[in-house]
Amino acid sequence: MTPLGGLGDVGRNSASFEINGQRLILDCGVLFPDENHPGVDLILPSLHLLGETLDDISCLVLTHGHEDHIGAVPYLLRRRPDIPVLGSRLTLAFLREKLKEHRIRNVDLREMEAGSRTTMGEFDLEFLAVNHSIPDALAVLVRTKAGTVLHTGDFKMDQLPLDGRLTDLRGFARAGEEGVDLFMVDSTNAETPGFTTHEIDIQPAMERVFSHASARLIVACFSSHVHRVQQVMDEAVKAGRKVVYVGRSMVKNMTIAAQLGYLKVPANTLIALDDIDKYAPKDVVIVSTGSQGEPLSALSRIANHEHPIITAGPGDVVLLASSLIPGNENSVSRVINGLTKNGVKVVHKGNALVHVSGHASSGELLYCYNLVKPRNVMPVHGEVRHLHANAELAIATGVPRENAVVVEDGTVVDLHDGKVAVVGRLEADYVFVDGSTVDAVGDAELDERRILGEEGFISAIAVVNLHTGELVEGPIITARGFIDEEGIFDSISAEVAGGLREALADGAEDTYPLQQLMRRRLGRWVSKRYRARPMIVPVVLAT
Amino acid sequence: MTPLGGLGDVGRNSASFEINGQRLILDCGVLFPDENHPGVDLILPSLHLLGETLDDISCLVLTHGHEDHIGAVPYLLRRRPDIPVLGSRLTLAFLREKLKEHRIRNVDLREMEAGSRTTMGEFDLEFLAVNHSIPDALAVLVRTKAGTVLHTGDFKMDQLPLDGRLTDLRGFARAGEEGVDLFMVDSTNAETPGFTTHEIDIQPAMERVFSHASARLIVACFSSHVHRVQQVMDEAVKAGRKVVYVGRSMVKNMTIAAQLGYLKVPANTLIALDDIDKYAPKDVVIVSTGSQGEPLSALSRIANHEHPIITAGPGDVVLLASSLIPGNENSVSRVINGLTKNGVKVVHKGNALVHVSGHASSGELLYCYNLVKPRNVMPVHGEVRHLHANAELAIATGVPRENAVVVEDGTVVDLHDGKVAVVGRLEADYVFVDGSTVDAVGDAELDERRILGEEGFISAIAVVNLHTGELVEGPIITARGFIDEEGIFDSISAEVAGGLREALADGAEDTYPLQQLMRRRLGRWVSKRYRARPMIVPVVLAT
Repeated sequence: MTPLGGLGDVGRNSASFEINGQRLILDCGVLFPDENHPGVDLILPSLHLLGETLDDISCLVLTHGHEDHIGAVPYLLRRRPDIPVLGSRLTLAFLREKLKEHRIRNVDLREMEAGSRTTMGEFDLEFLAVNHSIPDALAVLVRTKAGTVLHTGDFKMDQLPLDGRLTDLRGFARAGEEGVDLFMVDSTNAETPGFTTHEIDIQPAMERVFSHASARLIVACFSSHVHRVQQVMDEAVKAGRKVVYVGRSMVKNMTIAAQLGYLKVPANTLIALDDIDKYAPKDVVIVSTGSQGEPLSALSRIANHEHPIITAGPGDVVLLASSLIPGNENSVSRVINGLTKNGVKVVHKGNALVHVSGHASSGELLYCYNLVKPRNVMPVHGEVRHLHANAELAIATGVPRENAVVVEDGTVVDLHDGKVAVVGRLEADYVFVDGSTVDAVGDAELDERRILGEEGFISAIAVVNLHTGELVEGPIITARGFIDEEGIFDSISAEVAGGLREALADGAEDTYPLQQLMRRRLGRWVSKRYRARPMIVPVVLAT
Repeated sequence: MTPLGGLGDVGRNSASFEINGQRLILDCGVLFPDENHPGVDLILPSLHLLGETLDDISCLVLTHGHEDHIGAVPYLLRRRPDIPVLGSRLTLAFLREKLKEHRIRNVDLREMEAGSRTTMGEFDLEFLAVNHSIPDALAVLVRTKAGTVLHTGDFKMDQLPLDGRLTDLRGFARAGEEGVDLFMVDSTNAETPGFTTHEIDIQPAMERVFSHASARLIVACFSSHVHRVQQVMDEAVKAGRKVVYVGRSMVKNMTIAAQLGYLKVPANTLIALDDIDKYAPKDVVIVSTGSQGEPLSALSRIANHEHPIITAGPGDVVLLASSLIPGNENSVSRVINGLTKNGVKVVHKGNALVHVSGHASSGELLYCYNLVKPRNVMPVHGEVRHLHANAELAIATGVPRENAVVVEDGTVVDLHDGKVAVVGRLEADYVFVDGSTVDAVGDAELDERRILGEEGFISAIAVVNLHTGELVEGPIITARGFIDEEGIFDSISAEVAGGLREALADGAEDTYPLQQLMRRRLGRWVSKRYRARPMIVPVVLAT
């Protein structure tokens, strides 16, 4: 078993299980880049660890439809579209839409219901319902000749779920009685004390907002959070407001969810954005993307008065019904500030109970460990701190410390006779998607971007004649992202020219030392004079 | 009265009060840049609004010694070092150190005690004690012929302060009875419900850490938080550990604080970092900077195994005794992950009560408004959301809505006959310090940095002869921060060369259209082929 991603990060979840020359891939998601990956669009799991051919893959199993679990599937299937993909109905519906966008056809998608069991080569698979912040999520019980693995996927244990679909703790208990050799458990909230609040507990805040809003009302939430949208929908009906979806992914996902029956849309409730002007602001609720302050999202554009259709001002209310993903604090704050400045009242998790997490907190995880009583535990899905916190929970319930293995992406773990052992370590490097390229941009380019983005660059171009020893032209010195005042390079330009002439007179036979000379002189000058370290880009052309 | 900074941001606090041709400047701090200001070192208040000459400034009043209140003083005093600077003893001691670093001499620093009163030209000043996350903070009562202003500075109302120095609510009450025309109030925590926890309430967590730590113990906190360090010091004495300061600003500030008596250092407690190896890890506590995950700080270097002297591993404990400044979540998480990975136990605000805020929460602010009963209120120090939340608190206590003025930096506010009116608006642009330059880098350069940092650049250089219509050399196409694979520019290079030759054959008389041709062709190619938009930097040299 080798984690291909998600152990050390919140994202790019993927794991490979190997037995007798066959592989099962569990989830294949993306990681969203942070400030350490400037310009990168997506980060993929280390699929290169699967080797040159993908012929040994028996199946891909998906636990649920979030991007960090299915977002990288196209990058796997475009190499071998015939891999059977197993998942729940909603998960596969979201995937189907994604594959369409990637123009991947003739795929083999197999719908699995919670409670069902099937065999794929060496793998005997049983699917168990779990609840999460998206409907139709599954845990997976993988029985093999080498032992039994229970993988929770992302989950929580809401005991009053809105759709009545409980996490199948009976199934967990049954698996435990049968014997679970390796329990792989969602670590996202392992540091959070106590229990995750019920989804239904945000109802009062939601009702309050609807009853107090007398003009325009906008609710922003994750575009896959069907239950959250259902809550808004229900309140809208009570309040006599029509519902409008805003944001491409919101429209797409909610349309799918409604078609498949996961979202109940009462008749005459939904209207199209184009028709919004036919209704008074007080008769509509807008359900929007942009709860993380994404600069191009509908909500950010509304906050900046840049949305072509929707405006929000004094008397209007915006409800941010979502968590704050770490790293997004500043952008969310910018949206709140923008809206507040326009006179909009903003209700958010800082001032009301308007969001609950989709992940089990430490209290719930303890229940799980006690119910399953696994032989070995491997925390998954989280940063190192979360994985360790989760391991400590397992140990607190009696799992021996040596059987709670905290490993990172690329670690090869063997399960043999009910014992888990680390047997190797592969380089599980990030794979960057940048524009239309995959793995074409790497750490070297990101290092360059970091310097360019912090300090800009100074370029110096000179044309020389190596035969006559003449400086034909230049140096022409220009800068971008650096102070670019008229004449600031005059003195250093003359100095560099002098240096070049000297070197040429000394019989330089090559452009390389001349470039180095320009780099050195400019670098020293800019560092001394401006305490700055822009990238120096010297080019010497020899005619 | 004109705010020069701090109204719309948490930082660069500064305000200018004008009467009869005289000015009082209250605070002069810096704002720390975020991801929107790549490469910028500091952001200064809009001191340019003070005009060409600074001759009309009667005095600079400092409320306390935090960087966001005193950090920009050198940039003001280097233009007029003789401005009298009034502040408390510790504030001026911190400032003196800063001015030394900036080589600003012959300054006129005047120590003011809490409770004292003095006149500076048109301004009658009274200083009132407030408590905050640094000792010796002051509120200021400014009496003028136009009316009386009470400015809280940054403050909270800890009723059990560690040093026994209470916020002078009697003074606030007295000012209120006399009549406060304008009450300027710290907004930082105006959104926070209830009351800020007492400093003393973190004692149990601190004790627990000291009693459980059996090996190395590192406490990271803000380097100006004298009381936090005092708590560590007291626990260290009880536990029989020596104390070592790590980090330049920690050493500097705590040395000053001890010299002036704000920090009580028991004999034989403090040791130098160089002597740390003479003691067993369990006999020392390290007090370190880096609680915000600053990459170059001691703590980050310890987490990355890069510190020359200190290591931390299994069995060791790190206590992050500080808040998390929004925007620093990722970097702090990186430090926690790094330490956790090394086997260190990390105690932080997420898993223990190890920090309390330095600012009054909404509950305390209500007390203030009721005690002072001001005629007009102007929330200061905070983002727009905080200013608005603070205004709502004032209004809730009975201040008429039209008298609670939420304004932003640069708004000119007049106080006349006890009435406040907005009379103008100046451009309160950010002033960037970058390297050794002030205001040399502006929005245009930051825009370029943003493009360069996200996408890199492609440069294309060609040498042409406009007389003969010949393409002498090039185009030489290179990239930085962009895919730089062997040969990727071959085809486009040939295409651009063809375009240049055609344009030259058509009789191009100037290099400009040739540069535009290169920019267009390359831009189109890279956008179509890679869905990327790097900066295109074309240079055509004519010989």
